[in-house]
Order: sequence, then C-alpha cells, then structure tokens
Amino acid sequence: MYRDRIRHPAFINKVRTAEEAASLFKNGMTVGMSGFTRAGDAKALPGALAQRAKREGLALTLITGASLGSGSDGLMADAGLLARRLPFQADATLRRKINDGKVMFIDQHLSETVVQLRSGSLAPVDIAVIEATAITEDGGIVPTMAVGNSASFVQQARTVIIELNLSAPRALEGLHDIYLATGLPIPLIRPEQRIGSSAIAVDPERVAAIVITDSPDSPSNVLPPDEETAAIAGHIIAFLSGEVSAGRMGRALRPIQAGIGTIANAVLQGLIGSPFNGLTMYSEVLQDSAIALLDSGQLTFASASSITLSPAMHEHFISNLQDYRSRILLRPQEISNHPEIVRRLGLIAINTALEFDLYGNVNSTHVGGTHMMNGIGGSGDFARNSHLSVFVSKSTAKQGAISSVVPMVTHVDHTEHDVDILVTEWGLADLRGLAPRERAPLIIERCAHPDYRAPLRAYFEQAVQRGGHTPHLLEQAFSWHSRYLSTQTMRAP
Amino acid sequence: MYRDRIRHPAFINKVRTAEEAASLFKNGMTVGMSGFTRAGDAKALPGALAQRAKREGLALTLITGASLGSGSDGLMADAGLLARRLPFQADATLRRKINDGKVMFIDQHLSETVVQLRSGSLAPVDIAVIEATAITEDGGIVPTMAVGNSASFVQQARTVIIELNLSAPRALEGLHDIYLATGLPIPLIRPEQRIGSSAIAVDPERVAAIVITDSPDSPSNVLPPDEETAAIAGHIIAFLSGEVSAGRMGRALRPIQAGIGTIANAVLQGLIGSPFNGLTMYSEVLQDSAIALLDSGQLTFASASSITLSPAMHEHFISNLQDYRSRILLRPQEISNHPEIVRRLGLIAINTALEFDLYGNVNSTHVGGTHMMNGIGGSGDFARNSHLSVFVSKSTAKQGAISSVVPMVTHVDHTEHDVDILVTEWGLADLRGLAPRERAPLIIERCAHPDYRAPLRAYFEQAVQRGGHTPHLLEQAFSWHSRYLSTQTMRAP
Repeated sequence: MYRDRIRHPAFINKVRTAEEAASLFKNGMTVGMSGFTRAGDAKALPGALAQRAKREGLALTLITGASLGSGSDGLMADAGLLARRLPFQADATLRRKINDGKVMFIDQHLSETVVQLRSGSLAPVDIAVIEATAITEDGGIVPTMAVGNSASFVQQARTVIIELNLSAPRALEGLHDIYLATGLPIPLIRPEQRIGSSAIAVDPERVAAIVITDSPDSPSNVLPPDEETAAIAGHIIAFLSGEVSAGRMGRALRPIQAGIGTIANAVLQGLIGSPFNGLTMYSEVLQDSAIALLDSGQLTFASASSITLSPAMHEHFISNLQDYRSRILLRPQEISNHPEIVRRLGLIAINTALEFDLYGNVNSTHVGGTHMMNGIGGSGDFARNSHLSVFVSKSTAKQGAISSVVPMVTHVDHTEHDVDILVTEWGLADLRGLAPRERAPLIIERCAHPDYRAPLRAYFEQAVQRGGHTPHLLEQAFSWHSRYLSTQTMRAP
Repeated sequence: MYRDRIRHPAFINKVRTAEEAASLFKNGMTVGMSGFTRAGDAKALPGALAQRAKREGLALTLITGASLGSGSDGLMADAGLLARRLPFQADATLRRKINDGKVMFIDQHLSETVVQLRSGSLAPVDIAVIEATAITEDGGIVPTMAVGNSASFVQQARTVIIELNLSAPRALEGLHDIYLATGLPIPLIRPEQRIGSSAIAVDPERVAAIVITDSPDSPSNVLPPDEETAAIAGHIIAFLSGEVSAGRMGRALRPIQAGIGTIANAVLQGLIGSPFNGLTMYSEVLQDSAIALLDSGQLTFASASSITLSPAMHEHFISNLQDYRSRILLRPQEISNHPEIVRRLGLIAINTALEFDLYGNVNSTHVGGTHMMNGIGGSGDFARNSHLSVFVSKSTAKQGAISSVVPMVTHVDHTEHDVDILVTEWGLADLRGLAPRERAPLIIERCAHPDYRAPLRAYFEQAVQRGGHTPHLLEQAFSWHSRYLSTQTMRAP
C-alpha cells in the first residue's frame, strides 16, 4: 500500500511505528518539523511524542515552518513537551501556555529561522520530522501541501524521520521547487520560475524511520467574506484601479502577497470580477481565494510555501490537481519570503493588523501589548520589502468595544517606515510620502470607526500642542487600552 | 582652472553662477541633492536657493542621500525653502522646524527612497543637484566623497545641475562604483567587488548648469572615544572572540557595518590591535576609525556610500589617496544598504540606540517618543537583514538623569525581531533564541546602569504577575519618561 510511494530501495526497510520513532528523541533536543499554516505538518509524531512526555517527561525545542494543524501544538504543549517553540503558532492551548510563561516562544520573521540555524545563532536541529508524499528513486523527499522549513531541517539535522502520508495525492509530486539560499544571488526573477528541484535530497543513512500516516491536513478555519471584509476589498480595488489609471501599474498589477486569515482571503476574493487580469501571486500561503482566482482565469500563476483550504475547496483542488500543477509552485519559506525576492519583484503585500495607530505603526501580534495572539509570521518579510505595504483591519472588535485605530499601538511589529496603506471597512489611507502629522488626520477620517473619530482627533490636537515630529501624550497614549481592561470598552464613559 | 575637470565639450559652455542656476527652480518642485552624512553635498545651491526663498518665497520638497554639511539644511529651513524633507537630516535648525511641524519630514530607510521614486510612490525629481569631482570624456559625472542617491537623481530628473568642486581631489576618480538595481539579481557577492561604472552617465541635454565651487565637506563632528565607548568596544570584541572560538566565524569575522556617530566609531577604533584580521566593511559611511583600521592592516577592504572624516584624518586620507584607492569603493546607498546584499553577505551590523527596552525593542530616533533627533537612516536596512544585529548605547544620558534602558521604548524603530545583541558600557546581552521573559533579566543585569536595575526589576516582576508573552504595565510603561518631563530625571524621588 505504501510501497509504491517508497521508490528508493534503501528506504523500504525503515518503516517504523510512530512510537518507535518517538523513542529516538532525547530530552533537550531541538526538533524541526514540517508544517506551515496547518498544511503539510507531521500527523503522527506530535501525538506519540506527547504520549512520551506525559509518560516519562520529555521537553524539546520545537521549530516548524509556521502553525501546525490537528491540534498538535496544543497536544504537545499540554503534555509539557514544548520547552521552547519557534517561529510561529496559532493554537489556543499553546497560546495560553506562552502567555503564562510556561513555553518560551520566539516570534520570528518566517524567512529568518533557517538563516539563524545555518549561522549557528540558534542551536542546531537534532531531528527533522518531515511529512512526505513519496520518496523518489533518487531518495528525495517529496513534500505534501507545504514546504516551509523542511528542506533546511533535512539538510541540517543529524537524524531525519519521514512521515509518509498516504492521504496526500501522488500528483503533488512536481508541485515543489526546492532551493536553498547560498552566498550567491537567487536567480528568481518571475513568480512562475522554477529554480530548484522537485524533492528534498537526503542521505538515506540519516533517515532513521519512516512512519506511515493517512490523516489529512486540518482544513482552513478562515471565515467567509462578510459586509465589512467586502468593503475592505472594495477600497483596495478602487485604490489599485487608481494606481493603474495613474500609470504606476499595468492591469496585471504587481505580484500579490496576501497574509493568512479571513480578511486577506476576502480581499483576494474581491478581485474576482475586478478589472485586473494576468495577475500573479508571490505569497507564503494560498487560501481558497487564490484557487478561486486561478479558476476565474484572472490569476495566471501562484507561488507560495503552502496551501491551506476549506474542506470543499480542498476537495475541488485535489480533484483538479492536474489542472493546477502548471500554475502553482511551492517553495521553501526562506525563498517565498526572501527579502531579496520580495524587493526585486516589487510585491503588493496585504497583511492583517490587530491594531494600528495615528502615525501608521502596526501591532500584528500582542493583545493589549502583552498577550501573544499568533506571531508576526511572514508579514514583516513582505511589508518591509514590498512595493506597496498594505495593512487591513476591521475598524473595531468586540462589537465596537475595541477600536483598531488607537492613539499609540501597545506593541510595534511594523514601524511607520514599513507601512504604505491602511484600510478598514470605512476607507483607505494612502500614507506614501506623508509626514506623521499629515498621516494622523487621514487615518482618523478614512479608517477609524465614526464613534472613535472625535476622541482620536482630540488626542491628536492636544498632542500637537506639545509639539514634536510625532506628537503624543505619553501619559494618555495607552489610556484606551487601560480603560478596556477595567471597563471592557475603549469608549469614554 | 576648472576646464581640465570638464573633459566633454558639450558641458564646457554650461558654467553658470549659483544664482543663475537657482533661478531654474519653481515653487513646489521636488529637488534631489547629493550629500550623505555631511559628505559630497552641494555647497553653492543651498545658499543661493535660500536667498531666493527669502527674497521672493520659494518652497520645495528636498530629497538627499542623507544629512548635509555646511549648515545647509539649517540655512534652507530658516529661509522657509523646505516644505518637505526626506529621507534623513542631522541639523539643529531643521530639527527644530520639524518638531514644530513647520517642515514635513519623512523619515525613511535609506535604501528605499529611490525605490519609491522609481515606482512613483513619491513625486518625481524635477531637478537634481549633484556635486562632482569631474566630468569625463564620456560625459559621466564623477562624484566626490559620497554617492548617496545621486545616480538615481540624475537618472530620473528632468534637469540636472552639477556643482563642480575644485577642492575635491582629482584622484577620487575611480573610487566610485555606480550600479542601480533593476529587476535582476545584483551580482555582488563580495564587499570588494566592482559591479558598475566609475561615473554617473548623464545626457548633456539635461544638464542645465555647471556651478563651480571650492568649499570642502564639513568635517565629522564625532567625538573621540572615551572610557564608556571603550568599554562598549571591549564587550563587543570579547563577544566576537567568543563567536570565533565557538567556530561560528573565522578571524576575519563577517563584513562589518557601523552606523554614523561617536559610539560606532569608537567600536571600530577598538578593533585596532584586536585579534581579528582580514576584516572587511560593507557599510554606509566610513568614519575615522575605518581609515585607521585600513592603516593598521587589519581591514582589507571597505565598501560604503560616503566618507566623513575629522579634519586631521581628512588631510591624511587625501594625502594618501593613492594608497586607499584599491581598498575602498563608494556605492549608491541603494546598493550599500540593499537588503539583498546585506542578507547575502551576512553582515555584523553595529548601530546606535537612543533607548532600548526590557524586551529588545529599539528607539533610534524620537526623544520622549515625540521629538525627532535625526532619523532612522540606514540602521533598519542593516539591522533587519544582517547576520548579527548589534545596538549600542551608553546606559544613561544627561549625567544619569535618563536611563537608556527603559520599561518600554516610547517609539519603535527596530522591533524585538530585528535585534540580536544589546551593549552598554556595563555589558552585553545576547538575545539570540531567547523569549521576551528571558531577555528582560539579561538586559537588566548586563546593560542597565546599576542605579536603574532595581526599578527595572520591580517593573518586570510586577508585569509578570499580570501575565503575557511580553509582560507590561501599560499604565506605568512610560512613567519614567513622564517623570523626566516633569522632574528632569527618571530617578524615583
């Protein structure tokens, strides 16, 4: 049943149970696991390792591509397995452990983890656990629905464990483009360009176990577009139409990156039927909307590091995989998010803000400045180096009790230097070429919820009285957040 | 006298006075001027334009490489000439105007200005004013002590004015490497590599005037090393020795970038006589210490965008220019600071912080979170993409009344994601691979002034009680800054 997927003879007698494979791990090891935004993650080892941790105590540093599916992060965190976790997560249980100080979480730009591993800034990976579709005649590992950091983990780890997932379509082979940065220029100049190989080379000697699984990826948990996300999409499309009219872009725009999540997905969804054509994506994850845009014919090619879909879209995608194979490439996240490529291609980067402030600083990660939500992910890789750095958010949260536009953000993930365009359902603020004092009125009038505009204006006007390039009232800068903590609303009484 | 420097016949009859050249400017124009960290700036037009502004009113958008010398920015700001200024400045008068809201200042990553010009995100340059050493037989402009954004300004401007500076040594010709980014990989893989031409190509038709000057660059205003900056250098050298011992670098380290200013200069000065050899620099500005390191033989090559020296070192440099010519290249700041190259070369980036916080966020620009000092300059270009991102600061300012280590920085230029190492005269905190809760105690014990350690510990411990990945007490986060504003000291009464 699995034998036709193991096409190199040196691998065939390495099949082990997950429990056998889990016995290879030692306390304090650094483990690199496949998986990026719920796609392509190892399905068996997380559970087996959690069992071992519960039974006999075992604590690891776990590095992945990005978030895992199947509740794996929660399972492992609950078992006390995760002493240290990087570079991203999106699991409720693990989030609680991180915010309780029980798991040391290192929140990183997703392109940088392997650079730090390679240079020795992080402790080396002892064991890599990689989900695969197949093992080729040459002994290459064919990934599944994500590449993430898998190629680097395999390259660096002393021991490799492969999870061969029988539920992954064989036709995924050929979808991947494995290339790792060296000291030379990366020869990629177009999103659709193949620069590497279709499998991850590995010395069979280092493969200690192959575990057979058949659990599918966890489906996307993105919500469908609603009135507000549709309005956000509308503002962006109107803005991009203006850029085309002004001659700053053609109708194919520039290659698009869109972050994970409901709003970014809705923005792309909104492009269907828009006047743009011949679009390309150079992104980190493809969501339902990317497939729908390929179907509409407006998107000609999509490059990413993973594919994370709803159950229905997954079914559609897999059933028509042959049609998509020539229009999608999955790359290591070092390459999908590489500053060199992001800058060279001149991307339109669309990412989600938790909150942003009067001057264009963005908080993507910390609720109330203290509690980690998920992590910065690739947003910084893209925002810093893109042609247009767009951040989107609904103008309020918690039924209007929280304004996403605040006097000062409580945590900065993207500085004013890295933010061009801010969008809420109310409108779009184009900050390009504007000084802080010019940005504030624009952000208030275009982006803030009407209920919060007057208090934002009052803050800004009072701050301006005190002077400064970036006027603030330090003693009041976080008063909205403090009020929310004590009264459950940012609204003044 | 100047005729032997104008080697192309089409240029010879373009010589005009500064006043004649100044008459070409119209209200509202965007002007690109040469000049980077007081080097290679136009000497005559700023004054002539300021005169015109005073006489008849004239307001411009002025874009440069970085800061200008000769009090030019102050002169122009005082005359009301500067409606809008980017991407950097370091002038007391202009700083006051910016903080008063009289000049709209756009603080940018220095590698990005020309990218934004090229893509139309900023209004196009109408007139470029470029200081030159000579005009070649081919009609190329040979820059002086800086390249900055000059090549892009010339490429983009409708009209070009050349300031031919007779005080610039003819032997500067050959020191420059002019290359502008295209959609292709930049072929630079070593700091010493020449990838472009030695002069800036220009169509003579677009050259409207050549103004003859002979004023030298303003000398560096960097202070000599003192006990504290020497201690900072000592900590960095000890750390780097540890990296060499651990096998993470060789004795040639990695190419070094050092920001402008007294502390960064002192750190490089401290490398003289250190155990490191075969060093290279890939930086934006070369200060006295770089020349001294070349003289010591430890530095084999220095690439930058400008050279800014003390009067004595300038004299020494010019007198021995032939010796240095093969060991220095000056590049456009787009290339000296390019994320693609910074990442590829794996730099050690050493930049100065105004203040940093318990979790490693750095403020480089805003005093009290509101008042602009100079600007972010190239620090973000380097910190984000370097192999090691080091920030240095004295632990206190104003005779100990201000702690540079604070609970929360009042403005973020470099997020925790982009900071590896923090150093003060007290010690060095290596934050690599650490979670926020692990960083705080290390930063307090290694970097904070002993007088501020107990209050920092108290803040952190109380914040931890409230939980969170990055514990904070929002209502107290800026209390030290507020106290300083009211009592002129951060010390508790």
